[in-house]
Amino acid sequence: MQQPDKGATIEDMLPSWNDGEAKASIIEFVSRVTKKGGSQFVPPMDRIAVFDNDGTLWAEQPFYFQGLFVFDRVRALAPKHPDWREKQPFKAVLEKDMKTLAAAGLHGLIELVMATHAGMTTEEFERIVKDWLATARHPKFNRAYTDLVYQPMLELLSYLRANDFRTYIVSGGGIEFVRTFSERLYGIPPEQVMGSSIVTKFEVREGRPVLVREPKMDFIDDHEGKPVGINKFIGRRPIAAFGNSDGDFQMLEWVTAGTGLRFGIIIHHDDAEREFAYDRASAAGKLDRGLDEAPKRGWTLVSMENDWKRVFAFEKENGEQ
Amino acid sequence: MQQPDKGATIEDMLPSWNDGEAKASIIEFVSRVTKKGGSQFVPPMDRIAVFDNDGTLWAEQPFYFQGLFVFDRVRALAPKHPDWREKQPFKAVLEKDMKTLAAAGLHGLIELVMATHAGMTTEEFERIVKDWLATARHPKFNRAYTDLVYQPMLELLSYLRANDFRTYIVSGGGIEFVRTFSERLYGIPPEQVMGSSIVTKFEVREGRPVLVREPKMDFIDDHEGKPVGINKFIGRRPIAAFGNSDGDFQMLEWVTAGTGLRFGIIIHHDDAEREFAYDRASAAGKLDRGLDEAPKRGWTLVSMENDWKRVFAFEKENGEQ
Repeated sequence: MQQPDKGATIEDMLPSWNDGEAKASIIEFVSRVTKKGGSQFVPPMDRIAVFDNDGTLWAEQPFYFQGLFVFDRVRALAPKHPDWREKQPFKAVLEKDMKTLAAAGLHGLIELVMATHAGMTTEEFERIVKDWLATARHPKFNRAYTDLVYQPMLELLSYLRANDFRTYIVSGGGIEFVRTFSERLYGIPPEQVMGSSIVTKFEVREGRPVLVREPKMDFIDDHEGKPVGINKFIGRRPIAAFGNSDGDFQMLEWVTAGTGLRFGIIIHHDDAEREFAYDRASAAGKLDRGLDEAPKRGWTLVSMENDWKRVFAFEKENGEQ
Repeated sequence: MQQPDKGATIEDMLPSWNDGEAKASIIEFVSRVTKKGGSQFVPPMDRIAVFDNDGTLWAEQPFYFQGLFVFDRVRALAPKHPDWREKQPFKAVLEKDMKTLAAAGLHGLIELVMATHAGMTTEEFERIVKDWLATARHPKFNRAYTDLVYQPMLELLSYLRANDFRTYIVSGGGIEFVRTFSERLYGIPPEQVMGSSIVTKFEVREGRPVLVREPKMDFIDDHEGKPVGINKFIGRRPIAAFGNSDGDFQMLEWVTAGTGLRFGIIIHHDDAEREFAYDRASAAGKLDRGLDEAPKRGWTLVSMENDWKRVFAFEKENGEQ
């Protein structure tokens, strides 16, 4: 067990965080739960921290990256589906009609997911996602989506793990989508990733057993679904939760209601220059109730603009890109 | 990383196994995948072994222990449900009419589970299970059900973990039922337990967030469901699988079809004296297809009578109880 319990060491592990209340609250929480003999000590097996992905570990604007992947899949598959040209919500994707798409909401997105994420084996799907991630570019930053991870959060993950925490992802995105990159990007292995899922079916094809993705929703890991999913996958209540939108509210509510010291953080996207500024009115990552209730619930609000020295690893120290 | 790579040490770790093909096949498999530089070396992160529970890690006769728990719950709740006296399958439970119960099959059992395992929070359910396990006695052995774990399998779990395997349970039984004892009995933490599940729902009760168990099946973790559940929870294919019934067939099929060295074991219950003898015709733990196909699929068949020096920890060396 390695515990960086000296000030200098701790600061070395969070170099992209500015000194301030947010950073101090993290360090205080970790110090208390790891202090042997302390009244708030938590044994390593119970040091579980859960992280939302979109908007918490990597960016989610102009739209959830998996949504952009879905749109690219619709375009790639469109030649085989001529009816999509006149059928919503496919028509809106092909015409880049974001207004109609936004109006179609979750229901419309699920319809697109069913049409593009099913019918193949789990291994074939993994290959399609990896190929897309290797070539697609973010429209604002003109970089791979996998470059859009938040450097301060990578440091936080490492800092927690150095203090014997296990770090889990609890994403509203697809579980098999996130698993294709979680280990490489965050050091989080597939068995520590939860997410929304579609039904898969066991089949023996030409003597070979495979798992085939079916066009049917299995579980939506968002809002009330997050504590439900955590309980199903982990079977015990984490002691720390990190999110950025109201989709994470119930996860933070449930985690911080446990007995003993608990910790909740909400990342507030208020940095239009280095990333994006959005909260109450956003289609992706809407933060409304959480912004109002964080102070009275004792959750730490992180200002990306003020608390983060840099947002992405590719930035220079002064924020230039 | 601790590797017991000397003969004496290895035998010390499996003292309840008789020398023979089964024990030799286990040791050979572990030696090969842990041999650095060997052509069949598997890195620790991929050393995942999955175990069925009923009939593989603990006994399952005269009926699955969770089934006996359900019957006890029906009896305990019966005074509040006078209609159960005339309503099947409840009537059969109250009258100990095992023939009618057997005929009601999985459908009948699910109906009983819905009526007895739902309506409370996850924490309340855990308490009910723990209270039952602390007091209920096995009809044949007159011991706590938690005494009915197989000593050779406990040694095997430890042996695998000493060789940097992670050990998981993949049970047809209820995930929250098995999690109440998995860590204490097997050293397997809740996050490494999969099982059948019912839907749980997030609610805020008097300002306190809770998860409430609903009378609705979520997932049946048996037969084709086992590889599906493993893929969902772990996200990668294990390299070793241990089962005892045809409910484990697809799990072994999927695990042993992966690339690289794989290992499958079926425990054959052929020891009427020390435990029970059953296979093709059994209601609980039926083993038919697996018995026929194990040899040609390269799976190891373990004879409880011949391969195990002792079955339970409470036996003396010579099998006396």
